[in-house]
Amino acid sequence: MLKNKWMKKLLPLAVLSSVGIASLASTQPEANAEEVTKPGEIKNVIFLIGDGMGISYTSAHRYLKDNPATETLEKTEFDKHLVGTQMTYPEDPAQNVTDSAAAATAMSAGVKTYNAAIAVDNDESEVKTVLEAAKENGKGTGLVSTSETTHATPASFGAHDISRKNMNSIADDYYDEKINGKHKVDVILGGGSSNFVRPDRNLTEEFKEDGYSYVTNREQMTKDKNGKVLGLFAPGGLPKMIDRNEETPSLKEMTSSAIERLSKNKKGFFLMVEGSEIDWAGHDNDIVSAMSEMEDFERAYKAAIDFAKKDGHTLVVATADHSTGGYSIGANGIYNWFGAPIKAAKRTPDFMAAEITKGADVEAILKKYIDLELTTEEIQSVKKAAETKKETEIDNAIEKIFDERSHTGWTTGGHTGEDVPVFAFGPGKERFSGQINNTDNAKIIFNILKNNR
Amino acid sequence: MLKNKWMKKLLPLAVLSSVGIASLASTQPEANAEEVTKPGEIKNVIFLIGDGMGISYTSAHRYLKDNPATETLEKTEFDKHLVGTQMTYPEDPAQNVTDSAAAATAMSAGVKTYNAAIAVDNDESEVKTVLEAAKENGKGTGLVSTSETTHATPASFGAHDISRKNMNSIADDYYDEKINGKHKVDVILGGGSSNFVRPDRNLTEEFKEDGYSYVTNREQMTKDKNGKVLGLFAPGGLPKMIDRNEETPSLKEMTSSAIERLSKNKKGFFLMVEGSEIDWAGHDNDIVSAMSEMEDFERAYKAAIDFAKKDGHTLVVATADHSTGGYSIGANGIYNWFGAPIKAAKRTPDFMAAEITKGADVEAILKKYIDLELTTEEIQSVKKAAETKKETEIDNAIEKIFDERSHTGWTTGGHTGEDVPVFAFGPGKERFSGQINNTDNAKIIFNILKNNR
Repeated sequence: MLKNKWMKKLLPLAVLSSVGIASLASTQPEANAEEVTKPGEIKNVIFLIGDGMGISYTSAHRYLKDNPATETLEKTEFDKHLVGTQMTYPEDPAQNVTDSAAAATAMSAGVKTYNAAIAVDNDESEVKTVLEAAKENGKGTGLVSTSETTHATPASFGAHDISRKNMNSIADDYYDEKINGKHKVDVILGGGSSNFVRPDRNLTEEFKEDGYSYVTNREQMTKDKNGKVLGLFAPGGLPKMIDRNEETPSLKEMTSSAIERLSKNKKGFFLMVEGSEIDWAGHDNDIVSAMSEMEDFERAYKAAIDFAKKDGHTLVVATADHSTGGYSIGANGIYNWFGAPIKAAKRTPDFMAAEITKGADVEAILKKYIDLELTTEEIQSVKKAAETKKETEIDNAIEKIFDERSHTGWTTGGHTGEDVPVFAFGPGKERFSGQINNTDNAKIIFNILKNNR
Repeated sequence: MLKNKWMKKLLPLAVLSSVGIASLASTQPEANAEEVTKPGEIKNVIFLIGDGMGISYTSAHRYLKDNPATETLEKTEFDKHLVGTQMTYPEDPAQNVTDSAAAATAMSAGVKTYNAAIAVDNDESEVKTVLEAAKENGKGTGLVSTSETTHATPASFGAHDISRKNMNSIADDYYDEKINGKHKVDVILGGGSSNFVRPDRNLTEEFKEDGYSYVTNREQMTKDKNGKVLGLFAPGGLPKMIDRNEETPSLKEMTSSAIERLSKNKKGFFLMVEGSEIDWAGHDNDIVSAMSEMEDFERAYKAAIDFAKKDGHTLVVATADHSTGGYSIGANGIYNWFGAPIKAAKRTPDFMAAEITKGADVEAILKKYIDLELTTEEIQSVKKAAETKKETEIDNAIEKIFDERSHTGWTTGGHTGEDVPVFAFGPGKERFSGQINNTDNAKIIFNILKNNR
């Protein structure tokens, strides 16, 4: 099926009809979804999404982290729990490579939909998400991300909207849409304060009135022990891991904080955690930022695994919504990919470019933030870009140094359509094994929740 | 470990020492390798290698094959049996992205070695292969490929050489190296007659004297029922699937012929099958040829699976040695990848370019072999290339049409380092599950053979 979609360029005049979701049922491994769990066997589900984290990212992250002081090629936390891969295509009338909204809706609601859809079907009707089903069961619920908490991925678990662009409406949904008279999401941690504190409405005040803590920096988050919390640590997305200061919590810290709060709920919890900016780095074709955010995401994943190991009744699943950038390990005929030049960056190219744009000296900035002996040509290339006064030009010039030294290749500023890895740990992990569809994630979790009321 | 290798660009003066193989032991899931098989449980092993078949290839192949007449997105044969992924890095002093020789040696002998090594260790000493171990057990053995049968991948199972370039010596090995007084490989089917029929030696005659049949076309191969056969169907590599005529067997036909012959051995068999030219297409950044060879390889894989299903004591494993070309599904910011324009090609760009170079009319050739309404600009781009009289230029111009219509991206003419998928079916398949190292394949198969003497 995917009627006509893979055909489109051949038949440009064909009417592109969006295909009913029900028709996709036969592609699902229903056997997996329908397996019965013993009541109580799976109490908690932590679902982690590395946005844009294709297999080249998880592979490169491993090689980057390789400790030269040991004789072992260390496996990453992900490597230890690989169970398979998943297909990511959307059900969009015009595009067959997914965006994050359609992919997240597939994983949150089990429904293939159009790109930009936030937990709505192709006819724009709302579809129930696993987070909502968990709340119906009386479980604790949480959304953690390094992007705005209203960004496509978390939004598709906790809100409904015809477009991902409506981030203010999505923030409203988090407050206004209730389940059995209660707020839908107990723990919201991430970026995006500008979508909550607005001229027309201050949702942080409204949440506080309803018993939520509102925290805006790392220390506040750590000290606060309220089971209900709204934590917004930046107006938009959080700084990337290597650019953060003490004020900003890491994804791991937010994840641990969420688990600590949610695990007080005797009925268990559902928590979605997104490493949002792996994708942003991919769009920017920025390998330094991509590896920064992979590391941030892996640490959060490990926190989830560590909890699950102690708990014994927690299922942890980590996967990606799609890959981004057409990133390849090796490029231009070179049979090498080097992590060391990437690790030599103390800040992201974005950060350095911003400093230079603000007037800082090119050579001083490069020297301060890149622990490499740059060549005259490399420094010159950034100086030349700086003459344009355009931050993007400067950013690109710095990124190019890392691409060329590491032999990193890119084919696009957008997403790509290959299958992405799936990692799972804990009771029920085997249901995610093999080659699955992104919708299977929701179907399996719905089934687990059905058996764990 | 991989001492210094992922560091190289940072420490250009560091001595690059090749690391002892034993040190890698800790990266192996020994638990998998050491599991005990019941005697007789696994009688036959069919090991298939899609050369260059990264996850973007297996994903694209699925989308290309999608039948628009059905409402289902059909799973490929591979999809049904995905069990995990594997790491492909070599143990080369200068390169950390593998070539096919080092990767095949890892899979055939369980040893990481330098790029170009044919079943020899980093100190150039010969290492035993699973094919040799199978022959020691009295099993039947076979090598099937669309490349020269002396090319890196099959060679690393049936020969030993310090360099993959020595294809004549590799052919000599197939004849000269004996196990318990017998030839090592019972069934050799593929390309490369020029390495067997040479001014200095005619190995086909020598093999015939020792009871082998020698066949050179499809019909001869099909009619011949000898348990020992040398079949060489081209001086070099075989034509790609969509370029073949009736004379040339498909990879599936060669695989079925090999299975038919080898399954007569009551002690079982080991058969290696390579879809060799997926990689060649990747090197050429030729999506039409890549998809042609993926289809050829999938059909061979299905033949192996079908035999295994009936037999019940056959383990089938399919994987890749690495990915090639940095191929991405989608490119240049476009959220679409179309299989239809690719399916519209009745011959490969190589084939068309050769015809044009020989003097055929550009427009006539394009019209004859591409079932698309090409634009004036597209035709003009090939005409312009034809003016150079350079086949490569013409080939590239034709490939570009398919890249642009399908939105296919490439980053390199070489290999890339990301993990590749692993598919397995039959008894023992679970040992290949999760995230493994390419050396694990050999270790597991050696263990199976040890328990099946």
